[in-house]
Amino acid sequence: MTSFEPKDISTGKLHGYLLSAVAPRPIAFASTLDADGNPNLSPFSFFNVFSANPPIMIFSPARRVRDNTTKHTLQNAEAIKEVVINVVNFDMVHQMSLSSTEYADGVNEFEKAGLTMLKSDIVKPFRVAESPVQFECKVNEIVKLGTEGGAGNLIICEVVKLHIDDDVLNEEGVINQQKLDLVARAGGSYYTRAKKGFFEIPKPLSTLGIGVDNFPDFVKNSMVLTGNDLGMLANIERLPTEDSVKAFVKDLGARYPNIKTATHRQKHKLARNYLSFGDVESAWKILLS
Amino acid sequence: MTSFEPKDISTGKLHGYLLSAVAPRPIAFASTLDADGNPNLSPFSFFNVFSANPPIMIFSPARRVRDNTTKHTLQNAEAIKEVVINVVNFDMVHQMSLSSTEYADGVNEFEKAGLTMLKSDIVKPFRVAESPVQFECKVNEIVKLGTEGGAGNLIICEVVKLHIDDDVLNEEGVINQQKLDLVARAGGSYYTRAKKGFFEIPKPLSTLGIGVDNFPDFVKNSMVLTGNDLGMLANIERLPTEDSVKAFVKDLGARYPNIKTATHRQKHKLARNYLSFGDVESAWKILLS
Repeated sequence: MTSFEPKDISTGKLHGYLLSAVAPRPIAFASTLDADGNPNLSPFSFFNVFSANPPIMIFSPARRVRDNTTKHTLQNAEAIKEVVINVVNFDMVHQMSLSSTEYADGVNEFEKAGLTMLKSDIVKPFRVAESPVQFECKVNEIVKLGTEGGAGNLIICEVVKLHIDDDVLNEEGVINQQKLDLVARAGGSYYTRAKKGFFEIPKPLSTLGIGVDNFPDFVKNSMVLTGNDLGMLANIERLPTEDSVKAFVKDLGARYPNIKTATHRQKHKLARNYLSFGDVESAWKILLS
Repeated sequence: MTSFEPKDISTGKLHGYLLSAVAPRPIAFASTLDADGNPNLSPFSFFNVFSANPPIMIFSPARRVRDNTTKHTLQNAEAIKEVVINVVNFDMVHQMSLSSTEYADGVNEFEKAGLTMLKSDIVKPFRVAESPVQFECKVNEIVKLGTEGGAGNLIICEVVKLHIDDDVLNEEGVINQQKLDLVARAGGSYYTRAKKGFFEIPKPLSTLGIGVDNFPDFVKNSMVLTGNDLGMLANIERLPTEDSVKAFVKDLGARYPNIKTATHRQKHKLARNYLSFGDVESAWKILLS
């Protein structure tokens, strides 16, 4: 382990660690207007949703580490108290990246990036027509976290209207996340395309899994089973009964006579095999046989 | 477009939209202690970093949409004002999921999930030994965003010590994000494994890209080039000179005589080919030839 306190390293170095370790981060493609009505568009990955009722999102245009200046988006949010947060999908990722260029005050990043301004229904800033989900927001509060370079500025937004592209909704009106095809930010120059890494984990049992603390020692201390295997095995309401284990092994033995002479190690590997298909019950029966 | 105001749909439905559309979300695996010193461990994806100086992270244990109850983590953070935020990698994702089970007050999720408690240096809550990056934090403030089911509670944390597994650091002391292998949360039962979707985009030019607004019309309105292509083409300081275009085409013509009779469409496709290798300069030369 390499350990240190933030005060003992430079802000730049700390910033790098935070960006790599807290990732992937969703991207707020924030559209604002300055006091004269000039549009601004810029991406922020210090961003997330924090509440559904009221629907609150927060993003943070931080003071620049390099020269302690602030971003136009912050000045605009202070002046106009409205913002449209647009999500970023794979089809627009290069245009989004370009719009993070530090163009001069008053330059319209919609035009620079070749994106389309779409009038909002409730707030004054424009939506990004190409974005598959757009949130019109009122700015409830802006919280300054510091005054030095690297200090964040929390722009606390309340969603007042949502717009969802019908192409990403299924027949039940639910968002199809494969079609949504979001990208997110990681450290350095890395982005990640969410759907390339999708996997599903069923919600934990509301009836409460038995937990690893209730495992027999030979399972808890297995040299074959991984942490992920233990986590899956723990999410079962009760261990299978002795009778059900006997019935399972008898049935299996009829098909695979070798099972009767299997070693512990072989059984644990077979259990892993069942787990890879999500069959926790059978994995336990093999382990307990 | 399907459009609506939050007040016109149920909190549950709105919650579902927010979770699918603001994604992938990084995961705070939050370790706390109750007033009696009992450990608690639970994952939260309403989470991000918001500032490097001071180093501020926020996560939100929201009031449950179902029954408007609050989570042990919130009560513990209010009582003890300290938390350890552990990042979640692929190797521990099933154990993390299990620990989100709503076990009774006082149940130790470290034991349930088979994870190892590691003493912290500065704060009282334990670190998760299996996590590759652990942040010891003081709780600066807790902001309640509402009183109904679905209301968030911002736990505003300041990092007082970082611990990074040496296995994920390269020789320069920088985090190798492939090795870190983080997972993040999306909507429904979806997670994403960040490194499966990694791609890189070089930072926009500090010398300012010309922008799509300065493109010749036949490029801006191309039927072949995508938004991503336009974004890449816009990130160039100036268009290549007429002379450099001629030299490029002459050189290319020597190798590929067909280029002299290529249609606009064929040239735009060839430009896309150069862009796919990040060669913006050559893409422009083909387009302008």
